[in-house]
Amino acid sequence: MVKNVKLPVYAVIMAGGGGTRFWPWSREKTPKQLLPIISSRTMIEETVSRLDPFVPPQRIFIVTSRNQITKIRQALPNLPSENFLVEPVGKNTAPCLGLAAFYLKRIDPEGVMLVLPADHFIGEQEKFLNTLQVAAAFASRENFLVTLGLKPTAPETGYGYIQKGELLRRVKGIEIFKAKAFREKPSPEIALAYLREGSYLWNSGMFVWRVEIFLKALEACLPELYQEMAILSKILGTSQERRILPKIYARCPAISVDYGVMEKASNVAMIQAHFSWDDVGSWSALWKISAKDQRDNVYLVKEGNGRGKILALDSTGCLIRAEKNLIALLGMKDTIVVEAGGSILVCPKNRSQEVRQILARIKEKGWKKYL
Amino acid sequence: MVKNVKLPVYAVIMAGGGGTRFWPWSREKTPKQLLPIISSRTMIEETVSRLDPFVPPQRIFIVTSRNQITKIRQALPNLPSENFLVEPVGKNTAPCLGLAAFYLKRIDPEGVMLVLPADHFIGEQEKFLNTLQVAAAFASRENFLVTLGLKPTAPETGYGYIQKGELLRRVKGIEIFKAKAFREKPSPEIALAYLREGSYLWNSGMFVWRVEIFLKALEACLPELYQEMAILSKILGTSQERRILPKIYARCPAISVDYGVMEKASNVAMIQAHFSWDDVGSWSALWKISAKDQRDNVYLVKEGNGRGKILALDSTGCLIRAEKNLIALLGMKDTIVVEAGGSILVCPKNRSQEVRQILARIKEKGWKKYL
Repeated sequence: MVKNVKLPVYAVIMAGGGGTRFWPWSREKTPKQLLPIISSRTMIEETVSRLDPFVPPQRIFIVTSRNQITKIRQALPNLPSENFLVEPVGKNTAPCLGLAAFYLKRIDPEGVMLVLPADHFIGEQEKFLNTLQVAAAFASRENFLVTLGLKPTAPETGYGYIQKGELLRRVKGIEIFKAKAFREKPSPEIALAYLREGSYLWNSGMFVWRVEIFLKALEACLPELYQEMAILSKILGTSQERRILPKIYARCPAISVDYGVMEKASNVAMIQAHFSWDDVGSWSALWKISAKDQRDNVYLVKEGNGRGKILALDSTGCLIRAEKNLIALLGMKDTIVVEAGGSILVCPKNRSQEVRQILARIKEKGWKKYL
Repeated sequence: MVKNVKLPVYAVIMAGGGGTRFWPWSREKTPKQLLPIISSRTMIEETVSRLDPFVPPQRIFIVTSRNQITKIRQALPNLPSENFLVEPVGKNTAPCLGLAAFYLKRIDPEGVMLVLPADHFIGEQEKFLNTLQVAAAFASRENFLVTLGLKPTAPETGYGYIQKGELLRRVKGIEIFKAKAFREKPSPEIALAYLREGSYLWNSGMFVWRVEIFLKALEACLPELYQEMAILSKILGTSQERRILPKIYARCPAISVDYGVMEKASNVAMIQAHFSWDDVGSWSALWKISAKDQRDNVYLVKEGNGRGKILALDSTGCLIRAEKNLIALLGMKDTIVVEAGGSILVCPKNRSQEVRQILARIKEKGWKKYL
């Protein structure tokens, strides 16, 4: 069992994503992290509870957006109210983590910061916490930005890849490498080559570092952003915060921490994780990780009201969600049929990542209530 | 234009079918003839109004079942209330037409009886009425049971076929043949052979005959049924009718007029009709006869409440119906997606005739409200 070690570890959960890929279930005001997609709890609840007992609630921080804060607070009643950081506007992950780092710096500049997306699937909690523990111990002593990499199990084109460099450390069977190169989402051919070559890991978007080390890297790699954010040191927790934060964000570039910091920094390490992981980026990804019937169908029925029902006759490889209706499939193959909030999506499983096209069309039509 | 000729012509519209093939739109208490499937009016309204001006409302009779009579009356407020005949139980078409014939015999034994299903599609009203007029004129003078045949336009396996015999009459370019042989629904190979051979017409299930000629044929071909039904002569319109009709029906065999009478009788003629016709026996048949967009999609949106909406992106050959939900298709091909009454059907167009399998499963599950 994982022990609650004495390291000063803080978790920062990024929960600002709008999320269109699970439409019609996800909506502007109810993005993926607020949906009970992989269990009967919302993904953000899963993400928080997965940290127990390694990180206690007092040291878990959430960065989110204005239009989600109310629902996020409701989903996480055990977290202290001051642990919810609200971005005035979404500017990708670099400003988000800058804000979190300056916030933590006031509490504990020597502290180790775990960065976790709110809406990923992680299969084995104990392996996950062991990995975080090893990464945190490493980051507490070494001046590295540590990223979590996962051994590819398929030639995925939806993930970024990181190439392993020299082995830095091996702890309890877990290896930490120098990160050699970051690669954007590859073509199918290149993804296959990465898979075969063996030295490329999936970039999970999870990071571990000391607060001060990250802020140094931010200053070196994104000096303008850092200068803007440095004002935070003076205003966080004061009466000026509410007024000035939007101004800082208005001037910040929208840039990801991968592109803006990790790819440029020289002190990046990668820990090779061994738990099963998926960013659950589409209905077909959800189908992949979900429990299936004998014919490979996944059934999701809204809990509570008891009105949603599903029948799948002579159908295989489908994902079906029912909320208020009886959904009856006959002779369908590899198809997504999802009912949610007065909308029904029907598309082939291998095209479910194109759902945003539907949202674009809905916007054109002015049917706002369906967004 | 068709004139209202002086022939004593009576139309009998068979509207007793339960209808499962348009589930989930059709239900036990709202079968196909009560749905606005091919226009904004119900099919039975279309069927009645299509007879205008050839048959006035006073001479149009409806045979239906107990559980449909209320809705049928509501749909046809212009018909005299005594023109609705209610079967105590459905026993296929032979008893239905026996009842109608005995009813008409009291009014006009010399009258010509047109037999029409309530739920067929007919493309051109004027051609249709011309054909009925020619058939009625022929039947009024000749002792034939006249059936309406249609030149096949495809190797349909869902229809019965009738082979043409010798030419009996040609009137205004319309030909009447002796009927040579009745063929049940054929295999695809045989259907193709019929189509190529040229002498086989589709059996439309529409008939024209004098009341007395039909009753003679019924007596000769189905003597037991005739004996049971003959009691009707004495009780129709009396206080006994309500009590005795169910007893008669309980003893009647359930048999079709095609199988029980037309195939056995020697005095069967077939008029070759030239209007476009379809029995609209499945969602795919409805797709075939409906107006389509440029990508061959058919859209049906429930009128009135304005909540049903449809988006079809990169989809072809689909039929989509929306009632309360936004239904969004992406990348679908030849698929039926129908929302009605709290249920949603999704199936390939070429399997829409198997919808009754879903109903069987719903019955097993005891989900009665969806039937």
